Amino acid sequence: MTTFELKQIARVESPLADLAAAPRQADEGAPEATLVFEPAYADGLRGLRAGDRVLLFTWLDRADRDVLVNHPRGDPARPQRGVFTTRSPHRPNPIGLHEVEILAVDGPRVRVRSLEALDGTPIIDMKQILNPDISRR
Amino acid sequence: MTTFELKQIARVESPLADLAAAPRQADEGAPEATLVFEPAYADGLRGLRAGDRVLLFTWLDRADRDVLVNHPRGDPARPQRGVFTTRSPHRPNPIGLHEVEILAVDGPRVRVRSLEALDGTPIIDMKQILNPDISRR
Repeated sequence: MTTFELKQIARVESPLADLAAAPRQADEGAPEATLVFEPAYADGLRGLRAGDRVLLFTWLDRADRDVLVNHPRGDPARPQRGVFTTRSPHRPNPIGLHEVEILAVDGPRVRVRSLEALDGTPIIDMKQILNPDISRR
Repeated sequence: MTTFELKQIARVESPLADLAAAPRQADEGAPEATLVFEPAYADGLRGLRAGDRVLLFTWLDRADRDVLVNHPRGDPARPQRGVFTTRSPHRPNPIGLHEVEILAVDGPRVRVRSLEALDGTPIIDMKQILNPDISRR
């Protein structure tokens, strides 16, 4: 089996402390959070501004990586689906994808609105959104 | 430094053989491709159908992982930006994100329209898009 090494570049600081308190999707209500970048990666934030929208990639380190099918949204009344057709955190590579709005940037500390990730969640990447206005600046 | 292990779950079969031939974004013209899943992960495709749109996560194994700033789209006339504000493949964790339309599913072989990834590119995840109709089925 071929594997690759992911490096943690930052972590989430959030009032969300456990899975029971976490909403399933950001639009169901999630608190503000702070992304705390490792000093070695802070240069990668150059040009980031309040008001930007970005894609945040997290590593859901509490997920079950052996799951391949499940009931969507955990509802047993819905037929099982392959995890690659869902957004379940339980999957072979538990990458979380979040579209977030930047509220403030203070060196390696980035404040964001409405992030549905637990306190301490590792961050592995951040990218421009798919259809951005930011690219025209 | 904290690291995590990614598992390759599939690979891209594409007529795109080298970087010089690859478009920068799918909407600039990219060929059809086939996603070939490892047999051990094929159950994760259950319920996937032609016409679905999904997010595909690749591992850009030819990227330079030491880059933190660059000129957007490689244009030296544009000011350098941090890679986390761009979609450059060159970044500490070179995860590629692609929104693709499913054309056909034949067991572990999934045909997709317009994928801007090179032949042989490892695939690490596939997910429902952020605002899907698929969730209502």
